[in-house]
Amino acid sequence: MKITLAGLGNMGFPMAERLLAKPFSLTITNRTKEKALPLLEKGASWASSPAEAAKEANIFATILSDDAALDSLLIDGGVFDTLPKGSIHLSLSTISVDHAKRLEEEHGRRGQGFVSAPVFGRPDAVVEGRLRILCAGKPEAVNAVMPVLETLGPKIFRLGESPSVANLVKLSGNFMIAAAIEALGESFALVRSAGVDPALFLEILNDALFRSPLYENYGKIMAEKRYDKAGFTMDLGLKDLRLILEAAESLRVPLPLASIARDSLLAGLARGRQPLDWSAMVLSHYERAGFDEPH
Amino acid sequence: MKITLAGLGNMGFPMAERLLAKPFSLTITNRTKEKALPLLEKGASWASSPAEAAKEANIFATILSDDAALDSLLIDGGVFDTLPKGSIHLSLSTISVDHAKRLEEEHGRRGQGFVSAPVFGRPDAVVEGRLRILCAGKPEAVNAVMPVLETLGPKIFRLGESPSVANLVKLSGNFMIAAAIEALGESFALVRSAGVDPALFLEILNDALFRSPLYENYGKIMAEKRYDKAGFTMDLGLKDLRLILEAAESLRVPLPLASIARDSLLAGLARGRQPLDWSAMVLSHYERAGFDEPH
Amino acid sequence: MKITLAGLGNMGFPMAERLLAKPFSLTITNRTKEKALPLLEKGASWASSPAEAAKEANIFATILSDDAALDSLLIDGGVFDTLPKGSIHLSLSTISVDHAKRLEEEHGRRGQGFVSAPVFGRPDAVVEGRLRILCAGKPEAVNAVMPVLETLGPKIFRLGESPSVANLVKLSGNFMIAAAIEALGESFALVRSAGVDPALFLEILNDALFRSPLYENYGKIMAEKRYDKAGFTMDLGLKDLRLILEAAESLRVPLPLASIARDSLLAGLARGRQPLDWSAMVLSHYERAGFDEPH
Amino acid sequence: MKITLAGLGNMGFPMAERLLAKPFSLTITNRTKEKALPLLEKGASWASSPAEAAKEANIFATILSDDAALDSLLIDGGVFDTLPKGSIHLSLSTISVDHAKRLEEEHGRRGQGFVSAPVFGRPDAVVEGRLRILCAGKPEAVNAVMPVLETLGPKIFRLGESPSVANLVKLSGNFMIAAAIEALGESFALVRSAGVDPALFLEILNDALFRSPLYENYGKIMAEKRYDKAGFTMDLGLKDLRLILEAAESLRVPLPLASIARDSLLAGLARGRQPLDWSAMVLSHYERAGFDEPH
Repeated sequence: MKITLAGLGNMGFPMAERLLAKPFSLTITNRTKEKALPLLEKGASWASSPAEAAKEANIFATILSDDAALDSLLIDGGVFDTLPKGSIHLSLSTISVDHAKRLEEEHGRRGQGFVSAPVFGRPDAVVEGRLRILCAGKPEAVNAVMPVLETLGPKIFRLGESPSVANLVKLSGNFMIAAAIEALGESFALVRSAGVDPALFLEILNDALFRSPLYENYGKIMAEKRYDKAGFTMDLGLKDLRLILEAAESLRVPLPLASIARDSLLAGLARGRQPLDWSAMVLSHYERAGFDEPH
Repeated sequence: MKITLAGLGNMGFPMAERLLAKPFSLTITNRTKEKALPLLEKGASWASSPAEAAKEANIFATILSDDAALDSLLIDGGVFDTLPKGSIHLSLSTISVDHAKRLEEEHGRRGQGFVSAPVFGRPDAVVEGRLRILCAGKPEAVNAVMPVLETLGPKIFRLGESPSVANLVKLSGNFMIAAAIEALGESFALVRSAGVDPALFLEILNDALFRSPLYENYGKIMAEKRYDKAGFTMDLGLKDLRLILEAAESLRVPLPLASIARDSLLAGLARGRQPLDWSAMVLSHYERAGFDEPH
Repeated sequence: MKITLAGLGNMGFPMAERLLAKPFSLTITNRTKEKALPLLEKGASWASSPAEAAKEANIFATILSDDAALDSLLIDGGVFDTLPKGSIHLSLSTISVDHAKRLEEEHGRRGQGFVSAPVFGRPDAVVEGRLRILCAGKPEAVNAVMPVLETLGPKIFRLGESPSVANLVKLSGNFMIAAAIEALGESFALVRSAGVDPALFLEILNDALFRSPLYENYGKIMAEKRYDKAGFTMDLGLKDLRLILEAAESLRVPLPLASIARDSLLAGLARGRQPLDWSAMVLSHYERAGFDEPH
Repeated sequence: MKITLAGLGNMGFPMAERLLAKPFSLTITNRTKEKALPLLEKGASWASSPAEAAKEANIFATILSDDAALDSLLIDGGVFDTLPKGSIHLSLSTISVDHAKRLEEEHGRRGQGFVSAPVFGRPDAVVEGRLRILCAGKPEAVNAVMPVLETLGPKIFRLGESPSVANLVKLSGNFMIAAAIEALGESFALVRSAGVDPALFLEILNDALFRSPLYENYGKIMAEKRYDKAGFTMDLGLKDLRLILEAAESLRVPLPLASIARDSLLAGLARGRQPLDWSAMVLSHYERAGFDEPH
């Protein structure tokens, strides 16, 4: 089975490494070849363009930053035109629900398969094989990509035949993180106003109630004001909340909590906090509570 | 050291049992003697009235449902008048921040000590010694009640000299639970609209992100529609959100998430769901998303 | 018919003047006699205490700042005890719905009548006879006070037999003003971010859409930053939003807009803006949009 | 001066009539010629395609439903390609801020002028010459189109050189209407829960406070449940709130009130109320307050 992987960013590079450790025939393509060199040494083949890369692929996997990057590859890069009938586009990116629907249509019209398989986890989770993978698409297509997915992560959640549903669930997960950060932010502002150290409050919260590494991690970044080492920036957080609100609008589902988290992000972005970790939305709450925060 | 415990409800009864297992001299008082009988057999003394119970107590512990119940005991029941100078009122109840402030004043004026020590945990946590206890008050008073608190739970978090701060933190914890339920409710409505089973979404969420028993427990009640066995009713949820919003108003801290969770509760109460578990606020979200739910 | 008026504040004083212009026998009572002197010259009688004032009154009218002021008069001042059976307490104040309910009960138990008649309008509206009066209570009682109400304002809206309903409607009106200020505040922040002068935006808005003196007045205060001459302070605004949210909670009605207006007020109060006009909540929106505002 | 008008909908048709009453040379173009016939009789010229219509126009005016309709005309219809250098596209439609920015660029690159002039008012306001017109663009271009605008409405508000600002202000105006409807909806649900007829509440509100024909009109539609004769549908309301929220997001301005009005619309759309007037969002509030409403 010939696999192509397009996108050698923080997530794509270690994914390629995992695939090379298995007996797949892997072709890679990327804007700059430089990034690909260590992978070529380990046995990957190089394709000079996306179209070239797509030509003989059974599975064309993409791991890119957003809808626009994917369009640029598929349309301008010529993948739509060269990917053979019966081959499958395996999209691992966090793209919008609408975009996934359009891709399903576009590939379907060309006789190409499409599986959407966005992932939960950061680069270290790829390296350590801890990635959680959502997966939706036609059963035969999903079955065909399963060996690839199993190489990338230990847990794969199948979400039916409609690829875009996997994207909705992925974005819903990110919304849930935003909700937890919003809640932490509001309560931190409250207890701080009463003279309680947010770090102590967090300790109580997680010991007595949540016992969650996610609350622990985000809460600590906030309590220790370490927003400058962004795992996920304010800007990206805003993008994901926009995507989930758009998807919810199409489905006619109000998400008031997503709207207020979005407002907390906007208030931070209005103060120039684009590059900070999105948990810096706590600063918006501190400001509304009357504390003066650095911009 | 003579300890009195007033309130033999779901929480108070097992607390009394724990105290009786230690070499304290325990007096109990309750509206009805019947409930006290098994404790009297185990060595507790009976006081026919709160005033009587307070007269010789070094520590007068209360575990009651709300501000009004506590007032009825302290004012109408005569505890303010009979508790000796130097004795300490140890309040274990989830009362309002304002009420805790008033109690601090009232006891202070009478030369009585006051320690606020609200707890996290349900009756089974008392029995199994897993209670988390917050604690605030004058250091000598807190030190004096510490043996009692250590008998009730393994972890005690000290929150400074102002008793009401312990109540603020306790209510903030309950607000955080409400926030998690609100987030689960919104996302359940969303994924359900896209044809995804909320139970599967919950599994993904907790496996990939939260890994939290609290999300697990509340999410399962919601996914399995088991709201009728209420651990904490919609009505009580509304009360706690009102108390935290009042406290936040006094401190001039906006809590938009608390307001929207409150609205989800209100919409459920408007449909007659008082006796259900407060996680039934998900039904409000299902209704807004166009699903017809049982009232 | 013997009428007593208690409360000679900004509203009460001109009310007394209007009543004195008619052939009523008017007795007045106030914390300080000084304020009453000009009225005594015009023919009013002086009562040295509320109890004294109530003793022979057919109608005991009150115009006070809040629930507590009214309680202090009725309970501590002895009016409950001395107002004759069959006499009527005519409450013109903006009090809480719950308080109106308690007064209905308390007066009812004593055989005293109770009519709630909160008013829309500022002191100049009293002077110029432009007051709008809401009115609810038992029909006989309402009929009895009608000559007094007709003296105070040209328009009286009857709202049924339950006195507290008049208070609910009055508070709902104030909520509607808060909603308009919130909307103006948000849109001012938006257009200002795009370089449009809020004053020009207001002109367009009122010319093309609202044609409302209320939007005109509040909008101008905001556009011209004249918050320091408060017609109605941030503090009072917060009180009224609290009262309407409490009333709505009792009726199980979510009011999300009231909650967000409340948050805008809180954010302003957190920055020390208590004495400003409540339209200064626009400053909270400017701040969230990244503008630096004076505290 | 040769003017072309594209779009003969409810707004465009009476606009053409007004222009024909003045000594302009007017060419019209529309998807179907049928609709144009009465105008041709009055002296308008017919162009068989947008490209044809643009060829000799000094001012190419468009009044269309949305961004997509405009793109279809300009791109597919060939107007970008055929409109002469120095000619001006006068956009009278309510389009998105982003779209107006793109049009400014696209026309600028081709040496064509672009003026954005969205209007406030319904078809009857066109007929009666009561239209309010916003207007932004390069001064020479704005001056050139002024005779046309003056023919369409008596009041023109100039908003500077950036065309998209006119669209932002137009959308902000629609947001203000949505805010008023949201406020009316919440308060109607509240007073109705207390047994007060919303029609009476509206009467009080507008007599005592707003004195606004807009509150009067929308309030009456709501109080009399006449949503089926939609002046502006729920669907269009949602579109405009989406556009204003997008514009606000670009400017980094939180608009919480726009978000909650959007949620009220979504809850109504989830119940199948697309074709109703957008004031039917009051039904969402009635439902949350526990009333059963027809779907």
